[in-house]
Amino acid sequence: MTYCVGLLLDAGMVLLSDTRTNAGVDNISTYRKMYTFVEPGERVIAIMAAGSLSTTQTAMARLGDAIEAAEADGENNAPGPARSILRAETMLEVAEIVGTTLSATAEEIGQRMGANAQSASATMIVAGQRRGGAMRLFLVYPEGNFIEATADTPFLQIGEHKYGKPILDRVVRADTSLEDAQKAALLSMDSTLRSNLSVGMPLDLVVIERDRQEIAISRRIEAEDPKYRQMSADWSEALRQAFTTIRI
Amino acid sequence: MTYCVGLLLDAGMVLLSDTRTNAGVDNISTYRKMYTFVEPGERVIAIMAAGSLSTTQTAMARLGDAIEAAEADGENNAPGPARSILRAETMLEVAEIVGTTLSATAEEIGQRMGANAQSASATMIVAGQRRGGAMRLFLVYPEGNFIEATADTPFLQIGEHKYGKPILDRVVRADTSLEDAQKAALLSMDSTLRSNLSVGMPLDLVVIERDRQEIAISRRIEAEDPKYRQMSADWSEALRQAFTTIRI
Repeated sequence: MTYCVGLLLDAGMVLLSDTRTNAGVDNISTYRKMYTFVEPGERVIAIMAAGSLSTTQTAMARLGDAIEAAEADGENNAPGPARSILRAETMLEVAEIVGTTLSATAEEIGQRMGANAQSASATMIVAGQRRGGAMRLFLVYPEGNFIEATADTPFLQIGEHKYGKPILDRVVRADTSLEDAQKAALLSMDSTLRSNLSVGMPLDLVVIERDRQEIAISRRIEAEDPKYRQMSADWSEALRQAFTTIRI
Repeated sequence: MTYCVGLLLDAGMVLLSDTRTNAGVDNISTYRKMYTFVEPGERVIAIMAAGSLSTTQTAMARLGDAIEAAEADGENNAPGPARSILRAETMLEVAEIVGTTLSATAEEIGQRMGANAQSASATMIVAGQRRGGAMRLFLVYPEGNFIEATADTPFLQIGEHKYGKPILDRVVRADTSLEDAQKAALLSMDSTLRSNLSVGMPLDLVVIERDRQEIAISRRIEAEDPKYRQMSADWSEALRQAFTTIRI
């Protein structure tokens, strides 16, 4: 499995993904699930992926091919799934291109897998902003359709989302600061890491500030990262402390 | 869905279940999922159920029928699935009777349901102690096999178990007091209730003390219960407070 979370806030967006992939419990690997695309000042796009690694890697490779093809031929601006996400007019169009590519890839791989087609499915979180447009955060379903984060529901999760949802439900609102949002995402991930072996370090953290078409923070957090370990230990201690104050 | 949790501690056992059942999101009802059987001083058994309501109700009715049949005929002590759980020699035998009854019921109902058989499955938590025997806590799978809680893994969950697992992972150990264990179970339930609509109030809480073949506490907690509401509000506040103390 996987755990990825994206937060859409007044101040910007925070994205966090783990890197564990597994086929069974005896075949565990580390793969980056966070992809970023930046044209400074023009547009910034970040994509996180959960589900079949074969499907997500192939879909991302196709999105990359389309970008290269468009770059090689400045006039090539074909619509449809072969369109470069860096030529899309809006973030909505980016989500549509990602959705079409993802569902077509999953269907193709699923057909080869026959009865096991279920395991070819994958989901993605697509975040970004184009100059002059709004910041947008989408969750793209395996079938290619998508939903969008709003002020009422300022975060979206894919993969093992349940363990880390309670803390987000309690502290994240649209007006949460980018620093608190990073903290909430990291604590949400920390709870998931502790309770589920199929989610694992290192982590990839990306922060995008509103109306700045660039990556403000891009940080890989290794298992032995001293600040992360301290935060994790502090949170355990704070939770235990909070627990002792409760009366039933 | 459902959320039920059982804790096996040095001091006794704590069991907590919600009462929500739903067929889709537009057909929601309240059903007790906690069943207790007591022969004071001789044995105490508690069973919690998650999954298909049709399967769990039928399985519980059959267990009840077997108890009545054995009571009506003092000599009737037939082995196998028709055996009364109040005639079982050990808690292990109780788990076996429950498992056999549960899997046979699910299979029968599943056959009638044909292609939808998956939805006939159910799981149960079986807890209890017989005079002279050890306290034991089992999780019975849909196929009738089971696992048992130990000092290393002092809690078992069925239903929507992920939201409420992080707090249990952090605070519950075999030497946790019965009061703290009730608190941990209630906070685990509280996180689940907040994040998942398919789990709902009221709650049923049962506490069994070690080597006392009786129910020490049996409490139904309604949605408007002032102590529960206070605990829930205090926990939210304590979590938010803890959150502010963390540095990343």
